[in-house]
Amino acid sequence: MPTHITPKDFEIKHLNMSPKIREECGVFGIYGVEDAAAVTTLGLHALQHRGQEACGIASFDGKFHSERHLGLVGENFTGKDLRQRLPGHVAIGHNRYSTAGQTLLRNTQPLFAEMDSGGLAIAHNGHLTNAYLLREQLVHDGAIFQSTSDTEVVLHLVSRSRRTSFIDRFIDALRQIDGGFAFVGITNKKLIGARDRLGIRPLVLGKKGDAYILASETCALDMIDAELVREIEPGEVVVITKDGAKNKIEFIRAFPKVPKRPCVFEFVYFARPDSIVGGQSVYEVRKRMGMRLAKECPADVDLIIPVPDSGVPAALGFAQAASIPFELGIIRNHYVGRTFIQPTQAIRDIGVRLKHSANHTLIKGKKVLLVDDSIVRGTTSTKIVRMIRDAGAAEVHFRSASPEIRHPDFYGVDMPSTDKLLAANYDLEGMRELLGADSLGFLSIEGLYSAIGDLTRNDEYPQFSDHCFTGEYPTSLVDNERKNSGENPQLSFLVDVA
Amino acid sequence: MPTHITPKDFEIKHLNMSPKIREECGVFGIYGVEDAAAVTTLGLHALQHRGQEACGIASFDGKFHSERHLGLVGENFTGKDLRQRLPGHVAIGHNRYSTAGQTLLRNTQPLFAEMDSGGLAIAHNGHLTNAYLLREQLVHDGAIFQSTSDTEVVLHLVSRSRRTSFIDRFIDALRQIDGGFAFVGITNKKLIGARDRLGIRPLVLGKKGDAYILASETCALDMIDAELVREIEPGEVVVITKDGAKNKIEFIRAFPKVPKRPCVFEFVYFARPDSIVGGQSVYEVRKRMGMRLAKECPADVDLIIPVPDSGVPAALGFAQAASIPFELGIIRNHYVGRTFIQPTQAIRDIGVRLKHSANHTLIKGKKVLLVDDSIVRGTTSTKIVRMIRDAGAAEVHFRSASPEIRHPDFYGVDMPSTDKLLAANYDLEGMRELLGADSLGFLSIEGLYSAIGDLTRNDEYPQFSDHCFTGEYPTSLVDNERKNSGENPQLSFLVDVA
Amino acid sequence: MPTHITPKDFEIKHLNMSPKIREECGVFGIYGVEDAAAVTTLGLHALQHRGQEACGIASFDGKFHSERHLGLVGENFTGKDLRQRLPGHVAIGHNRYSTAGQTLLRNTQPLFAEMDSGGLAIAHNGHLTNAYLLREQLVHDGAIFQSTSDTEVVLHLVSRSRRTSFIDRFIDALRQIDGGFAFVGITNKKLIGARDRLGIRPLVLGKKGDAYILASETCALDMIDAELVREIEPGEVVVITKDGAKNKIEFIRAFPKVPKRPCVFEFVYFARPDSIVGGQSVYEVRKRMGMRLAKECPADVDLIIPVPDSGVPAALGFAQAASIPFELGIIRNHYVGRTFIQPTQAIRDIGVRLKHSANHTLIKGKKVLLVDDSIVRGTTSTKIVRMIRDAGAAEVHFRSASPEIRHPDFYGVDMPSTDKLLAANYDLEGMRELLGADSLGFLSIEGLYSAIGDLTRNDEYPQFSDHCFTGEYPTSLVDNERKNSGENPQLSFLVDVA
Amino acid sequence: MPTHITPKDFEIKHLNMSPKIREECGVFGIYGVEDAAAVTTLGLHALQHRGQEACGIASFDGKFHSERHLGLVGENFTGKDLRQRLPGHVAIGHNRYSTAGQTLLRNTQPLFAEMDSGGLAIAHNGHLTNAYLLREQLVHDGAIFQSTSDTEVVLHLVSRSRRTSFIDRFIDALRQIDGGFAFVGITNKKLIGARDRLGIRPLVLGKKGDAYILASETCALDMIDAELVREIEPGEVVVITKDGAKNKIEFIRAFPKVPKRPCVFEFVYFARPDSIVGGQSVYEVRKRMGMRLAKECPADVDLIIPVPDSGVPAALGFAQAASIPFELGIIRNHYVGRTFIQPTQAIRDIGVRLKHSANHTLIKGKKVLLVDDSIVRGTTSTKIVRMIRDAGAAEVHFRSASPEIRHPDFYGVDMPSTDKLLAANYDLEGMRELLGADSLGFLSIEGLYSAIGDLTRNDEYPQFSDHCFTGEYPTSLVDNERKNSGENPQLSFLVDVA
Repeated sequence: MPTHITPKDFEIKHLNMSPKIREECGVFGIYGVEDAAAVTTLGLHALQHRGQEACGIASFDGKFHSERHLGLVGENFTGKDLRQRLPGHVAIGHNRYSTAGQTLLRNTQPLFAEMDSGGLAIAHNGHLTNAYLLREQLVHDGAIFQSTSDTEVVLHLVSRSRRTSFIDRFIDALRQIDGGFAFVGITNKKLIGARDRLGIRPLVLGKKGDAYILASETCALDMIDAELVREIEPGEVVVITKDGAKNKIEFIRAFPKVPKRPCVFEFVYFARPDSIVGGQSVYEVRKRMGMRLAKECPADVDLIIPVPDSGVPAALGFAQAASIPFELGIIRNHYVGRTFIQPTQAIRDIGVRLKHSANHTLIKGKKVLLVDDSIVRGTTSTKIVRMIRDAGAAEVHFRSASPEIRHPDFYGVDMPSTDKLLAANYDLEGMRELLGADSLGFLSIEGLYSAIGDLTRNDEYPQFSDHCFTGEYPTSLVDNERKNSGENPQLSFLVDVA
Repeated sequence: MPTHITPKDFEIKHLNMSPKIREECGVFGIYGVEDAAAVTTLGLHALQHRGQEACGIASFDGKFHSERHLGLVGENFTGKDLRQRLPGHVAIGHNRYSTAGQTLLRNTQPLFAEMDSGGLAIAHNGHLTNAYLLREQLVHDGAIFQSTSDTEVVLHLVSRSRRTSFIDRFIDALRQIDGGFAFVGITNKKLIGARDRLGIRPLVLGKKGDAYILASETCALDMIDAELVREIEPGEVVVITKDGAKNKIEFIRAFPKVPKRPCVFEFVYFARPDSIVGGQSVYEVRKRMGMRLAKECPADVDLIIPVPDSGVPAALGFAQAASIPFELGIIRNHYVGRTFIQPTQAIRDIGVRLKHSANHTLIKGKKVLLVDDSIVRGTTSTKIVRMIRDAGAAEVHFRSASPEIRHPDFYGVDMPSTDKLLAANYDLEGMRELLGADSLGFLSIEGLYSAIGDLTRNDEYPQFSDHCFTGEYPTSLVDNERKNSGENPQLSFLVDVA
Repeated sequence: MPTHITPKDFEIKHLNMSPKIREECGVFGIYGVEDAAAVTTLGLHALQHRGQEACGIASFDGKFHSERHLGLVGENFTGKDLRQRLPGHVAIGHNRYSTAGQTLLRNTQPLFAEMDSGGLAIAHNGHLTNAYLLREQLVHDGAIFQSTSDTEVVLHLVSRSRRTSFIDRFIDALRQIDGGFAFVGITNKKLIGARDRLGIRPLVLGKKGDAYILASETCALDMIDAELVREIEPGEVVVITKDGAKNKIEFIRAFPKVPKRPCVFEFVYFARPDSIVGGQSVYEVRKRMGMRLAKECPADVDLIIPVPDSGVPAALGFAQAASIPFELGIIRNHYVGRTFIQPTQAIRDIGVRLKHSANHTLIKGKKVLLVDDSIVRGTTSTKIVRMIRDAGAAEVHFRSASPEIRHPDFYGVDMPSTDKLLAANYDLEGMRELLGADSLGFLSIEGLYSAIGDLTRNDEYPQFSDHCFTGEYPTSLVDNERKNSGENPQLSFLVDVA
Repeated sequence: MPTHITPKDFEIKHLNMSPKIREECGVFGIYGVEDAAAVTTLGLHALQHRGQEACGIASFDGKFHSERHLGLVGENFTGKDLRQRLPGHVAIGHNRYSTAGQTLLRNTQPLFAEMDSGGLAIAHNGHLTNAYLLREQLVHDGAIFQSTSDTEVVLHLVSRSRRTSFIDRFIDALRQIDGGFAFVGITNKKLIGARDRLGIRPLVLGKKGDAYILASETCALDMIDAELVREIEPGEVVVITKDGAKNKIEFIRAFPKVPKRPCVFEFVYFARPDSIVGGQSVYEVRKRMGMRLAKECPADVDLIIPVPDSGVPAALGFAQAASIPFELGIIRNHYVGRTFIQPTQAIRDIGVRLKHSANHTLIKGKKVLLVDDSIVRGTTSTKIVRMIRDAGAAEVHFRSASPEIRHPDFYGVDMPSTDKLLAANYDLEGMRELLGADSLGFLSIEGLYSAIGDLTRNDEYPQFSDHCFTGEYPTSLVDNERKNSGENPQLSFLVDVA
């Protein structure tokens, strides 16, 4: 006989398994290599952790070629005819998470525009904080938008600029936008890159033989055996083009120099551990966060268990600093499907189980410390604490290797609004109670800066975009302010079904 | 043992089965009916003969909704959730053959633009003869095009017009374009329609209860039980909107009145035989063409066989006038797939056989007259004559129920260039020889006008756009002239793979 | 304002457009030609009218290759790699309508079995009247069925036969089955064909160079330029194989000779008009049906309108015999999609309109005679009569070019059960009233035989399988009798979703 | 200018990323729960690591329902209508890697047969070592196979058994087969399970409320909150059915009791670390392997780096035993696509990079020890050693946490043939040289047994199926012997394209 079920369990639920913070995007560009598109697929694959929703590549061989898909690079850019489909020695690519604009193919980048000066394909990591305002003005002036992506604003600004040279027009456009951004683009002749004036979003320059590469992270350079030249500077525009038989690179400072403020979340969560950010190994920084955390918020436990996979380096650091065994107490299921149907038979916290399983034998009767990189909403953390407790742990303690997240981001990080951020709504004891943990601790801001290390040798603060922890936003937030004051009218967007 | 095959047969050929003249498009719009999109699918289905390459519907219910597909209406606009996908009391739809722009989903109509004045979705039958010139100017002024369709030019012209009211902006745009066109569009509040100043492309107004309908042909009105109000006049703009609880219709003359010159090919080939064009039954006109042809070019034969399906009414008329039996000597295969693989074993004229089969028993030993609506390239006609002869006919005569086509079209009819038009390159005897027919005859221009009937009661000539027969183009052909003089630079279009 | 609609119109209806009688299947086989599969696609395309639900091809080149799809031949057997996918000089193919078994890919033919004697692929047109009984016995003996198709019974009978040679085993199997069938099959070495003992289902033999062809109809031979050798005799098995360098054909009489009784519906409806059945042109027979009908049931009308397309030859014959104009009063829409959504706005008889439109101008005020090949349920006929009357006809008369259908078929024709056959439930006046026609007439059985012509020179009756008109079934109907007596238990079929 | 490339790089390569040993399959069954199919999707998801090629579920609610797909459970068994598609309180499911039979949907399990005694759906983990011989005999006796899967042999044996009760027939079938297997099946009334006489393949019994569960591993029980009852004994058949309102379970010993010999690879590689096998935590066993390895083959290094993910527990054990830091020196990319196109520009070991990246900063200048669970072909290990060396390691040592694999498996583990097994062809020094490691070590057989722990308290050897290390196969290998002696004729399998 079927086990008894309660009526509320009857409803069908799709169990979605999305990450807690969604990365904004990854970009890649290469100039001067045979099969530029094939190399770009490898670069984008290395950057896949920065966005899995959609991907696109544009190449140029006298004509522009473009292909955009929903899904992963490795699922889409396959087929022996890739070289025929995307020929050329120049290509750019994009992995996307939607931070602005609906999840539609027509919002997938690279975006393309044919202009008086020729074609321009462009891809973008970040978010413009005055995109709505600019869009309104542009539409008022007769511009027609093909997407709901904020990136398209830049295309129109370039297209309408009264400057003569393409680079001047591009810079003209950049000076009108605000926010955090890293652009890669190709024109009839050039590969271009640009980073916002504060360097909020990352962009690095690499070299492989004669070829130049632009990428969001150094791990994309490693993938294709290229060497890191340096990070693109805040406010810098880089232009790669041909000079006779050689490739020429030109650096243009599009904005006055100000102290840089790269996004601190690249260290906390986004960047791959094997990437180098600001001269620092991300893996080492995360381990140091864990080590510092061990000092700031020690825990008397038998085992340290990372919340996989993002909590692993910090947990290792904590374990080494505290000389407590590091153990794999949570097994991650890598074969993640999109959706499952909730059986009427109630199974508690099924969403978490689909990705994570508790290692019962290990946990039973033990005092356990869970280490994660951060706590955003707290919903997943709560379920994981409960899962570990259900597995028989004597005590369950929780540590976040970054400070309390109290403020939303507006520069390309898909984070929930303030009312959904755990730390914005509860004090430490309230959070601990909600999580159901025996103790709870967060790394301090100072601890975070200290872990990042020699970037912080001087005493100026802040040196990063750390507004999620501090509320100190590095730029104005026009669209957001207008939205809050009700000035920002909803544009009559098309609801495009297909 | 396999039969002998010659090396040249080894190559793989895809056997394409496309019609000889491809229609330009069909448009449909309805205002003031529940499930406007579902009604639009029926209207588009009735207009499916005007374009089978792609189809799209846009509806409005406070927001715009749009869905566009490659393929037939009945293959795509299905599913119980159609009402949810395309809600609203107003909708427009489009069946497309590409006469300009590549066959891509992003070229599929309706096109949409968000403007300062609100949203505009638009669909278009016809072709603009100065679209390239206008596009160049618009791109020069910073416009970014989302498609390669000439229709998008109109969106930009409306968007950039300095007039205040939407209708003034729309008319402002229409006055800048040249060529043959019938537009339907929806804004936040209105259903609009417009026809070019000479009425080259057709557009009719219908009514069903309180609802108004715009359609390319009356057969779309019959499909949904609507009654014909009248044809939209050349140069007329019609605006349907709400006036309190009722629907209001307004007619605006956007151009000075000139003698109308509708496209004569609607009678010859395009329109469905059960449609009424210019007050005349298309079926009756085609039968009269056949009757007149029987007088102008009689044939001493045993049987009259129509080339199916377009030659049927003329063949019936010919048979009735000449008192010769009308017989189905060619059987049409309606289950047409896209492509077949040519077997290495040579089979002559396989492309024609896939659509047509000779009725051997009927034909054997008989003197046969084939009647078709027209001859364009002559390639299919040649294969059909040969098929009938191979089936054992004693004699094979051929008659075209329209005059010799000697000039290409530039108003939305997909016709080959002059060097591929049979009658532009051969005299009557040359054509007869090429076709392999025992005799060949074409209806005269006078015969054509006479068959069309009381439209031609007055003596003014021409009364139609008959340039394919006469070379007298009713408008200027700016793009074409620039192209011929080499002035029209190829824009650096994106070659979009997906 | 949206027009008023009644509540019952709100429900969503999918408007299906299926033919009134569904043909059972078409088969094709070829031996001794390069690219046998490519030639088979052409043969199946010519037989597409016999089944559009699914299609399959099996070829042999040392190994068996097989591909089966839902949908049309021309939609599926495409792609430049067809030769690689289905290599070999021998192939068979099948077009299918489901008369037994669910519409699943695993029911799609050819079916294949590996046997002790080697592989066997088989395709089948017809229906076995003792398939259920045999299946039960086979399952009882441990056979495992892979499909719910009656064809598979034959595979098991062959596989379990205790005879030695393959042909003996095949004949052994044929002798156990009852019903109407035409089989084509391939083994490691042979192409085989077989026809039931009464020749109910058709099968013809053709030749093209050295290659032999088996096909349901001669139109498949015409398509590939092959010549008709003769019909396979009732109860005959034909075996084509290699004899040194040549192809050898062998004819085996598997059953004692009895008077043949081919299915009369091949003349009435199934066969393509350009096919030759029993030495007669199907087109000519249908015209003679119309001529005879004109004598048996004359009508005083202005116009004769065929119900397209199946009524056309009979209508032509009627018109010629009665000297009344034949006119295209109903326009058929060939771009038929699968399903449409019924708008809430009621549109009467929308299902019929999707396929047929009335030619209003022609019909208005006229006395009209509609001629169709047959009347089955009468539902479509009723809607067509109403459509013609709504178009303004002064009188609407209806004639069926075949006798009243009063009995179902069990030999492969998908016909409704007795309670849904119009003529089984109403007398002539009742039918006329239901149809809403001013008069109604059916061809007599004698008229039908007379139209078929010289097949009927001798006086023996019946000479055809005409049980649908007469109730005289040519074979026993074991499954049906057991079903009626409740003896036939429902087997626990798997409901296979995918 | 494009960098120079050598001609051999021009060829297009698809970079495949498959695991080194492929697991055989996972099975799951549940009786007595609402939405049995939805629960089964969760169970299969937990077992996804055992097979990712295809998956299938069969349920029973009076009728059998079945759905089978290529790909992952979470990609396929979705959609709100899952309950409608697969209704019932009983269901079984299967995750598959092909160890026998082509990768075709018709080989995907569960397989179904309708028998005299009713329907039977069956799924199978393992491999039958006399399947070919039995198949030959069955085909000789007239059986027709629907798949090339060895599982189908069992269906035919059951179907043809002369016993009366279903369970007797099932046991009759089991007694004829040899090899390693775990079966789950459903009949009209029962859920059944069975394990081979030596318990080579795993199967556990769980309970959740009144419902009974069968699964390959305990992690599937954890997923659905069920408790482990016990492992199914070697040679045991379990039958779950309804007894009035309750569910009844019956245990039948189908084979005489012999010492069990479960597959040792479940500990080494297959089972998920959080599963309990033979009463032991797999995670703990693996850690102990690493600890023992640290004693048997110590290494003087700075860091211990696991080859992710399978080497992690052993590396942790090694690090803890040796007090050397455990570090994440290899980052695994989880977003694995199927195929990439190799750029003409040569990138060394690109296949490995697509999955693994070296953490350069960490590795540079360090003496590194890589720990993996085993070495099969050695190709991936070679590339990983090279990748670590390229990243700047001063020394690279390698340890395998299991003994040398010298013999292939025939019980459901997809392992290469002897000529491709590294340890079967090289001595230790030869292997070290090939791998390019500074030192190489393998765990001893004794070490392995010792790590497995209290299972080995008694002194009998062997206690596991450890033939891959020892060559001592626990059963006869009929098919393999016949194949080697050339007796095993290739059956004329159909090459089924679709």
